Order: sequence, then C-alpha cells, then structure tokens
Amino acid sequence: MTESPVRYEIVHICRQSGARRGILHTPHGSVETPVFMPVGTQATVKTMTPDEVKSLGAGIILANTYHLWMRPGPEIISEAGGLHTFMNWQQAILTDSGGFQVFSLSDTRQISERGVQFRSHIDGSQHELTPELAIDIQTALGSDIIMQLDECADWKQDKIYIKASLERTLRWLERCMQRHKNHRQQALFGIIQGGVYPELRKLSAEQTVSFDLPGYAIGGLSVGEPVDLMYQMLEAVQEVLPVDKPRYLMGVGSPDYLIEGSIRGIDMFDCVLPTRLGRNGTVLTGRGKITVRNAEYARDFSPLDQECQCYVCQNYTRAYIRHLIKANEILGLRLTTWHNVYFLLNLMQKIREAISNNELLDFRDEFFARFGYTVV
Amino acid sequence: MTESPVRYEIVHICRQSGARRGILHTPHGSVETPVFMPVGTQATVKTMTPDEVKSLGAGIILANTYHLWMRPGPEIISEAGGLHTFMNWQQAILTDSGGFQVFSLSDTRQISERGVQFRSHIDGSQHELTPELAIDIQTALGSDIIMQLDECADWKQDKIYIKASLERTLRWLERCMQRHKNHRQQALFGIIQGGVYPELRKLSAEQTVSFDLPGYAIGGLSVGEPVDLMYQMLEAVQEVLPVDKPRYLMGVGSPDYLIEGSIRGIDMFDCVLPTRLGRNGTVLTGRGKITVRNAEYARDFSPLDQECQCYVCQNYTRAYIRHLIKANEILGLRLTTWHNVYFLLNLMQKIREAISNNELLDFRDEFFARFGYTVV
Repeated sequence: MTESPVRYEIVHICRQSGARRGILHTPHGSVETPVFMPVGTQATVKTMTPDEVKSLGAGIILANTYHLWMRPGPEIISEAGGLHTFMNWQQAILTDSGGFQVFSLSDTRQISERGVQFRSHIDGSQHELTPELAIDIQTALGSDIIMQLDECADWKQDKIYIKASLERTLRWLERCMQRHKNHRQQALFGIIQGGVYPELRKLSAEQTVSFDLPGYAIGGLSVGEPVDLMYQMLEAVQEVLPVDKPRYLMGVGSPDYLIEGSIRGIDMFDCVLPTRLGRNGTVLTGRGKITVRNAEYARDFSPLDQECQCYVCQNYTRAYIRHLIKANEILGLRLTTWHNVYFLLNLMQKIREAISNNELLDFRDEFFARFGYTVV
Repeated sequence: MTESPVRYEIVHICRQSGARRGILHTPHGSVETPVFMPVGTQATVKTMTPDEVKSLGAGIILANTYHLWMRPGPEIISEAGGLHTFMNWQQAILTDSGGFQVFSLSDTRQISERGVQFRSHIDGSQHELTPELAIDIQTALGSDIIMQLDECADWKQDKIYIKASLERTLRWLERCMQRHKNHRQQALFGIIQGGVYPELRKLSAEQTVSFDLPGYAIGGLSVGEPVDLMYQMLEAVQEVLPVDKPRYLMGVGSPDYLIEGSIRGIDMFDCVLPTRLGRNGTVLTGRGKITVRNAEYARDFSPLDQECQCYVCQNYTRAYIRHLIKANEILGLRLTTWHNVYFLLNLMQKIREAISNNELLDFRDEFFARFGYTVV
C-alpha cells in the first residue's frame, strides 16, 4: 500500500475547546488547518485571478467536478495538463464528486444503485453520473483531493430512507475505491451522511472509517436544518473519527459555523458564501454583515471594515464601492468579493491562533458578541 | 494670467513622418506623448483596479462627466475630495464635457443657444447641460484637464448646419472660459469641430486657437465617416495648431488610427475600444484581432498573443480564457480587457520609440502588414 499523497499532521489541541490545529500536506503544498477553501466552481474563484487568491493566503481551493465536466469537459482540462495548469493555480485543489450539483441543480434526476441520471442545467442533455465516472473525471482533473460520489439526501427524509441512502453511499465508496488508481497524486476522501440522526451519523462514520481513507468529509449538513442539529451531528461523529486524519465539513463557511465547526474538531471548510455575498453587494465586517449597495453608504467615505487590513479596505471607500455596484461595474463585485474572501481567510488565521493559545471558546464569545451572533 | 497647470513639452519630431514626441505635464504627474488614455467612464476603467491600470503604464485616464453627473453625482465626488480621491487614482485625469453622451445616449435632446435639454438614460428625468454647468461639474470632479461643451454634429449634416454649429461651439467656449475659475489645478481645452469640410475645420481651428488655450481637441471624428476623410481633417488643422500645445483626437483608439493620428501630429487619444472589445471576447494581437470566445480556441493552449509580454499572456491560455468567457466568468472579461489595454499602451510606447528613431512611417508599414491593415 502506497503512502497517501495527502497527510494530516496535528500541531496542537486547544485545551479550552478541544479544537485541532494542524497541517495538511498535499502534492501542491502544505496548508495550516483549520482551513477555509475558497470555491472556484468553474476553475476560477469568481472575479479573482489565481494570483490574487494566493495573495490572500489561500493554499487550497475547491473546484466543482459537475461544472467542469459539463464545461469545458475533462478532456480539455486533461489535455491542458490538468486543472492546476489549466487555471494556473499551483497550490492544492480539492474537487467534489459532482453529486451535490446533480442533486441540487437538476430537478429531474433519478437515483439508482448504478448512479444518478440527470439533465444538464446548460443544455438539458441527458447524463448519468456513476461512482466510477466521478473518479474518472476527477482523475482527468488531477486535483489533489478527490471525493467519493455520495447521495446528499434531503435532511427531512425519514430515518428508513436516510439509512438506505447512507448504505448506498457506502457501496458507492467501495466502487470509487476500486476505480481510483492514481494513489500517488490523488487522495480519495469518504463522505459521512446520515441526515439529522445521531445514530445514523455514527454508523456512517464507523463504516466509512473502516475503509482507512486519507480523509473524511461530513456531507449533507448546512442544508436548511436547524443549526443545533448540525452541531449535534458534528459531535456524534467526533469520537468516531481517527485523530490522524483530516476532517472536512462540506459546504460550510459562515463565520459562526467556521468557529463552531473548529470547536467540534473540523479541519477543512468550503463555501461560496464570500463570493456570493460579494456579488450581492454584501460584505462581512467584524461588526456583522453590511449591504454596501444600500443608500445609507452613498456618502460614507470610510472603508468596508474599519479594522480590516486587506487591500480593499486600505484603498477604497464604501461610497466608491457602492457607486460601482449601483453602476453595475465589475470592479464593485471584485472589491466586495476580495474583502469577503480575505475576511474568512483572516478569520481562520485567528481561529488557529486561538487554538494555539487554548482560548477558542473565549475567541468565539468575543467574536459572536461583536458580530451580533448568539451562541447556540 | 496664471501659468497653465497643464503644459506640453516637445521632445522630438520624427524626421520621417513629422510626428511629435513630447511630455504632457499635469498636476498629477507627467506622461509621455503620443499617449493613449484608457476610458474610466464611471470612475473605473471597466473590470480593472486603478493599481492595475497604473501597472500597465497608464499615466492619464479619461472619465465621463455625463455618467458621473447622473451617478453618483458631482456633490458626492466633491465631498470625497474629488475624482482622484474618490476612485483612488493619483495620476492625471481628463474629463469630457458630457456633451457627447448627451448627443449619443439621448434621442430626445433639444439644442438651443443656451445648452442642451435631454432625458437621463437611467431614469428618464429631464436635465439641461449648459456650457456653465459642464464647467461647474468638472470643477467639482477636479480633473486635471477639462473640456468645453461642444456640439458634436452629425458628420452627414450640410455645410450650413455644420458652420452654424461650430460657431455656436465657439460661443460656448467663451462661456466656458468665463465660468472656469480654477486655473491653478485645471486646464480647459477647446474643441475643434467642422464636420468633414476641410475649410470649416480650418476655420474652427483658427478661431479656437485665437483663445490661446492650454490644449486643443479635435472632436466629431471617427463617428462613421470614411477614414480618408478623417485623415484629411487632421491634415487640415495640423498647420493651424500651435506647436507648443497638446493636440487631442477625441474618441479614437484603434491601432491604425493611433498610428495614423500620431503621424498627423496628434499627442493624445482616448477610446473605449480595448475595454469594449475585451467584454465581447475579442483581443488585439500583433497579427490582428481574434475572437477568443470562438470554438476554434477551445483546445488552444497558447497565449492570446505569442509575442506579448503582459501578465495575461505570461500566465493564461486561449483555452482557459475561452472557457471563462463561455462560462460567463468575470475573470474572462478581466483578462481580455487587461491584455487589450496593455496592447494599446504598448503600441503607444512603440510609436514613441519609432518617432525618436525617425522611422514612424516604416513602423506603420510593418505594423499594418502584420496586423492585416491596408495603408489608406
């Protein structure tokens, strides 16, 4: 058995919270954890160059297999020399399996044991995503971390359905492992499902961990369920997961979730939140979100966030950015996105420091109080 | 009489073509001429940060008085400390009078001796632009070079109309000069009109020059008239214009016009061409324009322009940029725009070098042959 190309090294455990600080080693560099991975859906973190993303301190991004499969197609990316070369990003990349988009973008999908049939959101063409194909596409993309195909079931489904679904997800994991050959360059992570049932989450975690994979993801959360249920699910799997493997909470990235997830042992996060908020003219600040496109900022010549050290806050005012957004100028979206991505990467840095200082619970309480969150 | 805040210094006259190489001194730095001014219509060169525009070598940009008047309004920009501070651009700025947009964007405008009545293209509200107001708004913007209000008459109008129009433009110039008080920071340029009638162009030039202004613009060209007529108009005014003042050909920026204009003594150009082409997925290369969004570039892993030294050509491929544009990703527009602005700024550098080397006609012939232009 070859050593995994992706390894997790634990650096410190916060004595106050139990949160883990560590290092994730990949074929394209090492990143400190807990880490936030900006999302580069279509081989670009929306509005930003790869250089800019790197300059903000990001060492790993996520790209979406479904989108790249549909456009430009894995053949072109493979011909370019893989996704790193295609988009000129020399740091690490994690790709999802494509399953989540198939479930969320296509309203005519059909799940069978073999895989998922669906229609493209671009041209309506018919496709089938199988565990094997998910691996084949990710092999062509050449990402450092690849994900198994899983079923992301609706969290409101009953326990019987959720159990059947997680068992199928486990069988799909086996098929993914069978298909995965590129062990030197790409590490396959399994995905824990189980809806909002602690015992099913535990069962899924135990079964997934039994395959001894280089990393484990927790899927199907932050999809509309009450936040306390999400935290319970994280707590349910926490003791089952091995300490020497990275733990990735999929699709989660609001400041409160990043902090609470870290407290519950999560090492990796991804979310479109900073880019999506940015495109809506909303920015994150230490004192909560503000929608800078609103009229109240028309004559506000202060930066987006008074205490922020990012390029945007050092160079531009709310009034200017508001003008750009109102005038439909792309630079407006660039600046709000830039600031938001910086904000979350900077938040992760503060979380890591708080772990090292054994004070992550204190940090949470202070951050929540200023931001306007209530501790659940 | 105070010395003008904007001065032109002649450096060399090309012995082969008669083209002028010089330096334009402004309160916000000096720029080498002939110069291309990227257009920052709404206080932003579309898709680019001011830092990026500067990094490409631009020392002066143009902003549109009409657009900034309508949104965010001169009061807000004045409150911010002027346009330089508002958009964080510390190099020179030229603003137009707003007249061209009033004539081109509004189909219900009414011209009188007093000014132009029109409806806003944003909300349909009724406004009147007078010579005095054009100065007042530009005073609030604080640009280094401000333009008189002129009438940009349809070039197909008969000689009687064109003559009456240029005479009104001269009367409007007098009113602009009366209103203009900020002589230490802002230089007022007059605009030569006269349609496609050489004798009217000459008359307009003589009359405008008689006001002894710090610079002279040539307006109403490159608006659909045959190209040889445009060159004739430039030649008609060339001998009338004083050698110690800058000459600005408004709204012109295709590579052939930049070269032919320089040959005919022009020092300053502006055009939305590089940004507009970029947004359409078209880029300028030494071998002509290519539309990189076309299918033929899907697997083309070469740069936009093999011989280009710009950041885009050093880091990204046609295949990647095509993918971004097809996927409606903002980064695609950023990269094509970036390259196009670089291309024109770089072309101006080559023109200036060819002037110094007394070989601008040779340069034109070689450039035209490779680009695919025919010398008129």
